[in-house]
Amino acid sequence: MGFRVERTLFSADSGLQHVAVVESTGFGRMLFNDGAVMLSERDERVYHEMIAHVPLFVHPRAQRVLVIGGGDGGTVREVLRHPSVTACRLVEIDATVVSACRQHLPQTAAALEDSRVEVSVEDGVAYVARAAERYDVVIVDSGDPAGFAVPLFGDRFYADVERLLTDDGIVVSQCQSPFNDLTAQARLLETLGRCFPRVHIYNYCNLTYPGALWSFTFAGKGPRNPVEDLDPRRVADSGLSCFYYNAAVHRAAFCLPQFQAAALRHLLASPQC
Amino acid sequence: MGFRVERTLFSADSGLQHVAVVESTGFGRMLFNDGAVMLSERDERVYHEMIAHVPLFVHPRAQRVLVIGGGDGGTVREVLRHPSVTACRLVEIDATVVSACRQHLPQTAAALEDSRVEVSVEDGVAYVARAAERYDVVIVDSGDPAGFAVPLFGDRFYADVERLLTDDGIVVSQCQSPFNDLTAQARLLETLGRCFPRVHIYNYCNLTYPGALWSFTFAGKGPRNPVEDLDPRRVADSGLSCFYYNAAVHRAAFCLPQFQAAALRHLLASPQC
Repeated sequence: MGFRVERTLFSADSGLQHVAVVESTGFGRMLFNDGAVMLSERDERVYHEMIAHVPLFVHPRAQRVLVIGGGDGGTVREVLRHPSVTACRLVEIDATVVSACRQHLPQTAAALEDSRVEVSVEDGVAYVARAAERYDVVIVDSGDPAGFAVPLFGDRFYADVERLLTDDGIVVSQCQSPFNDLTAQARLLETLGRCFPRVHIYNYCNLTYPGALWSFTFAGKGPRNPVEDLDPRRVADSGLSCFYYNAAVHRAAFCLPQFQAAALRHLLASPQC
Repeated sequence: MGFRVERTLFSADSGLQHVAVVESTGFGRMLFNDGAVMLSERDERVYHEMIAHVPLFVHPRAQRVLVIGGGDGGTVREVLRHPSVTACRLVEIDATVVSACRQHLPQTAAALEDSRVEVSVEDGVAYVARAAERYDVVIVDSGDPAGFAVPLFGDRFYADVERLLTDDGIVVSQCQSPFNDLTAQARLLETLGRCFPRVHIYNYCNLTYPGALWSFTFAGKGPRNPVEDLDPRRVADSGLSCFYYNAAVHRAAFCLPQFQAAALRHLLASPQC
């Protein structure tokens, strides 16, 4: 899979990874970390809507939200569309990602200037270990489980996330492609299962990530069910105009293809849909 | 998007198009027509299960099925898994596709040797114009609406398909990617809307086609609703073991992303899901 680059807008080694923003043909501006596509202006809304609106429409009234990773600002942008949210903290390990996006990807990064947002440049694992603040929703918007992101898929990290969550809190995490990474998906669900009473996984279809079908995990500290506890009227009444997300897509996302359902069923809280 | 070719097993100009079967890295054997990927052994089941089982589990008891295109045999293979089916006719315009697949892609083409199958090498448009036989389900397993496949997206073709269908008959057709081809999707739905009382569109997620999210249209001559008239117990009782398809995926497939729902809503029979 490749993209045609018209112009490189930013290219630098951050010490952690190589960060590049390019102008592409057909996909708008794109962010690459170590050569792996992080987002394209053309389809980033699909990912960011699905990682943010699923937990925020299931939680009855999320006020404080923590985003780990996601230095491009796209997830924060979607979180802020919920008027109940009074504070959103972004914890991104790589300052270069944040500054490159602030400079060259306003479509996502403009959200970081909102007065409800606090940006911390810090290792997410270290932040959750030391933090005292509590959150209604935590969103782990990380890269692949490789290199410095590996601890974001570990037991210690999720034990700390569980501690930071309010009683009805929800954590949603980026979880790779079922076509390519079923083993990694099972591993993250097992990790979550050691910290949370109920874990789920849901899918969406991505245009620029290899694997096409892509997943997020959903774990609740309380008894919330991400399908049954969605009120479609609340989505309609919110007036939120999305590119990809709607209440039907939300529920459909939890209907897993047979190969994925069969491989992960024993790790999930409830039969699909 | 590209694939690594280890070995070319077949390569010939058929007069209609260039046909190639290759051994790829990571995707098994692959079929290309004029350089466009038609199938890979790795993920062909996704497409073939979704094009075949959706109409065959909605129709109460399909006995005679017509497949237009699909010379690789994958759609026929899935059709034959329904024991109600007594006859399946494949009408493929390009004899070279059928012979190349018979020789090099037994995973799909072996189904063509089943005694219930009749293979006709003929233009599908000409076949439906002259045919007298009637069918319970017609599946249009065509390539893109370009070149010799253009008439398969036209009014005349679908007027003939409507005539061949039994009173409760269903036609399902390959209909491109919503990410890339919304205009083509609208056009096919309009065409179908001139021949059938109710038209629908449903999606699945593809690994090897550019566009990732891919669609099929569903049009019924009778009043069948592809979501409400699915009986999940019938799917379970069938004992069919699929790679991708299951009753939950079937229903979820009709839940359209917001951009697609908004663009096509005025052409569809019922609100999604």
